[in-house]
Amino acid sequence: MYRDPDPRFDSLGGHPVALRPLRVGMIGMGTVGAGTFRVLARNQALIAARAGRGIEVVAVAVRNLARAAAIVGDGVALTDDPMQVATRPDVDVLVEVAGGTGPARDWVLGAITHGKHVVTANKALLAEHGTAIFAAARQHGVVVAYEGAVAVSIPIVKALREGLTANRIEWVAGIVNGTTNFILSQMRGAGLDFAQALVQAQALGYAEADPAFDIEGIDAAHKLALLAANAFGMPVNFADVQVQGITALQPLDVACAEQLGYRIKLLAVARRHADGIELRVQPALLPATHLLAQVNGSMNGILVQGDASGVTMYYGAGAGSEQTASAVIADLVDVARLEGTHAAQRVPHLGFHTLHPLPVLPHAAVCTQHCLRVPVHSHHGLTVVGALLARRGVPVKRLEWMASSTGQALQALVLTGAAPQGTIDLALQALQGQPEVAGPCAQWRVEPLAD
Amino acid sequence: MYRDPDPRFDSLGGHPVALRPLRVGMIGMGTVGAGTFRVLARNQALIAARAGRGIEVVAVAVRNLARAAAIVGDGVALTDDPMQVATRPDVDVLVEVAGGTGPARDWVLGAITHGKHVVTANKALLAEHGTAIFAAARQHGVVVAYEGAVAVSIPIVKALREGLTANRIEWVAGIVNGTTNFILSQMRGAGLDFAQALVQAQALGYAEADPAFDIEGIDAAHKLALLAANAFGMPVNFADVQVQGITALQPLDVACAEQLGYRIKLLAVARRHADGIELRVQPALLPATHLLAQVNGSMNGILVQGDASGVTMYYGAGAGSEQTASAVIADLVDVARLEGTHAAQRVPHLGFHTLHPLPVLPHAAVCTQHCLRVPVHSHHGLTVVGALLARRGVPVKRLEWMASSTGQALQALVLTGAAPQGTIDLALQALQGQPEVAGPCAQWRVEPLAD
Repeated sequence: MYRDPDPRFDSLGGHPVALRPLRVGMIGMGTVGAGTFRVLARNQALIAARAGRGIEVVAVAVRNLARAAAIVGDGVALTDDPMQVATRPDVDVLVEVAGGTGPARDWVLGAITHGKHVVTANKALLAEHGTAIFAAARQHGVVVAYEGAVAVSIPIVKALREGLTANRIEWVAGIVNGTTNFILSQMRGAGLDFAQALVQAQALGYAEADPAFDIEGIDAAHKLALLAANAFGMPVNFADVQVQGITALQPLDVACAEQLGYRIKLLAVARRHADGIELRVQPALLPATHLLAQVNGSMNGILVQGDASGVTMYYGAGAGSEQTASAVIADLVDVARLEGTHAAQRVPHLGFHTLHPLPVLPHAAVCTQHCLRVPVHSHHGLTVVGALLARRGVPVKRLEWMASSTGQALQALVLTGAAPQGTIDLALQALQGQPEVAGPCAQWRVEPLAD
Repeated sequence: MYRDPDPRFDSLGGHPVALRPLRVGMIGMGTVGAGTFRVLARNQALIAARAGRGIEVVAVAVRNLARAAAIVGDGVALTDDPMQVATRPDVDVLVEVAGGTGPARDWVLGAITHGKHVVTANKALLAEHGTAIFAAARQHGVVVAYEGAVAVSIPIVKALREGLTANRIEWVAGIVNGTTNFILSQMRGAGLDFAQALVQAQALGYAEADPAFDIEGIDAAHKLALLAANAFGMPVNFADVQVQGITALQPLDVACAEQLGYRIKLLAVARRHADGIELRVQPALLPATHLLAQVNGSMNGILVQGDASGVTMYYGAGAGSEQTASAVIADLVDVARLEGTHAAQRVPHLGFHTLHPLPVLPHAAVCTQHCLRVPVHSHHGLTVVGALLARRGVPVKRLEWMASSTGQALQALVLTGAAPQGTIDLALQALQGQPEVAGPCAQWRVEPLAD
């Protein structure tokens, strides 16, 4: 298989440095854009030594030209017209780090139809418009790379799409939103309530001024849709993700999990069942000793169960300027290696050359253990709760009082055996109708994860 | 960049399935070989859908032909001549899973000179002969892939070589030998002594009949040499790894670590310093709450610190039939995508197109905190130990009695501040000369890892 010298490549002093530098156009020079520019400059020689060619930013589109000029210096074309950068003849690959979904979709599709590869860290864009974007990319013979869109610094897209190709993936479960993980860590570690922890997250830059996407679980659901597609070979299906955020969690709930030997985490779970896929983001209980329960602060962690590999786990920063740049640049290096390759040789956008839609299981059908917290009026409460659950077919593994906290109502804690969500929901409805029950009950899945 | 149909590829019903199947020759049909064959057969369609082409084993070389025939069935050529498989005209890629270094080197070089790619899980081979093997592969335009050689099921080679390409890697630290981690976990969890835990590891198949490579740290050092090369862009340097195994560890040592809030793990560490690389395998102390300290049993875990990514961690099985197959097949899928690519487009064997040797720091120069256990005759012991360490310039952060265990000599425990290994070694020599000291002292690094 020895080959004659290839006219596409030069030999420079015996080194295989060969192709001209890859020319990058960027849209956006905010936190991620500036970090990408900074790391590309700082590690320029190292990156070229890994990629086999240089990577050069030739054009940048931003709203604030003056601020961007101070970052990029001379030799980089600046404009406030993103489409101009997306379609420039001298751009090989567009880096879209502006965010948003409407205009970003147009820029990305503009770049694709002009034959440019795209690198983006925009999970909302791909969760909502991924199917159209990947189809266009395939039609035009380019790739759209998005390692930075999921658990930024962790090469989890690469692990799923390339590292675990031998495996039938059984499930993926992860903490994929740093903001909510920080808030939950502070509620547990510092005893804050949700609102206090959110303010702290905002003060430290872990949460946006409008934190809804994070705390309502939408951001995690965007990422889960991408993870599930890569795990199971299905199209991106954000619409069917069951989503519940963390805004209703109280310090009482954190203490309740603690008492039973668990931690509450906002988990994104995609699991294969015989009749479909379980696809959900919600606060769930993990055994306190589980590796994933040790993922604290704004860090992310993702477990993957493959039929050959068994469990593997990936851990790292879930946000940050240079942390995201690390993923964006890894994608650029991958793109730098694509010159002259055919689509059949490339890693498919969602890991499989052909995708098959998979039914998403209704929430009510998914069966796990559950934890309930039931406020009650008197010491008869435990008996009432236990009897009702027994009548409703909910197996009870533990039933105990929550260790009293000053001024709180009495709380019955229940750890159930495996039961479908539907059964639990009906039991909760019935509980809320009992005169002995003193307020709204809380309920969480207990996550069945190997480690 | 839209391309005309490429004559190398067919379009089958609109699917990009195109290239003929990749033809694999295998040497070895032991645990890993049989696992690879089994997973390739079980997940055949899934793997082809990911790879864009089929992967077929066409020939196998084994010693026991009858046993192999029962595994591979019809349609696969069987021989007891490995070189015949390595050089067969109908083989595209050789999978070497026979192990050993002498003959395996000849087979691998034979395949390379015949223009075949190679996939191997043989860390000993690459640690000892990697430089020659990678040079031959480069000369002949083929790749040698080895994801299975390091922490089998964890795609750590891919993470270092491709996922973290943007980063200047500062250090890599990992638990990369499942046998020793199982033994240490059993010593701690079940209170066994080293010999008992080893027997148990052997009974469960976690340790070889001759466990020396594992328990003396050699296997971990092989893997560390490969990790360090990929992290720092240096040639594989196994000869200079400082290696210490776990055979001297006593239950007393495990308890001592526990009392001070640490866990003893066999750590493989490669760390960049201004004047060279720290490269060592030794039992070391990790804070009990550290994520890496939660890696128990035969599992592996690796931390990587990059200048942009920050810390990332990778966790999974360190051994096993299908767990290793997962890595071997991932490499085969990567190879399946190489058709017609030039060396400059491929991921370099050790992550960088050009390698630079880096000096390995002498052990004595490396500076960390340390933990000492000093058996003493009387209750004057603490004072004697403290005074001697002060005279020898060893900063002391904690100095206390080990909680008494029945029938044991008194043990002074010391947690030092940061001090060079050379200073600690001199202080230990001096301690051993004290009449108050009742036996051999034990000493471990306290590992300075972020998380």
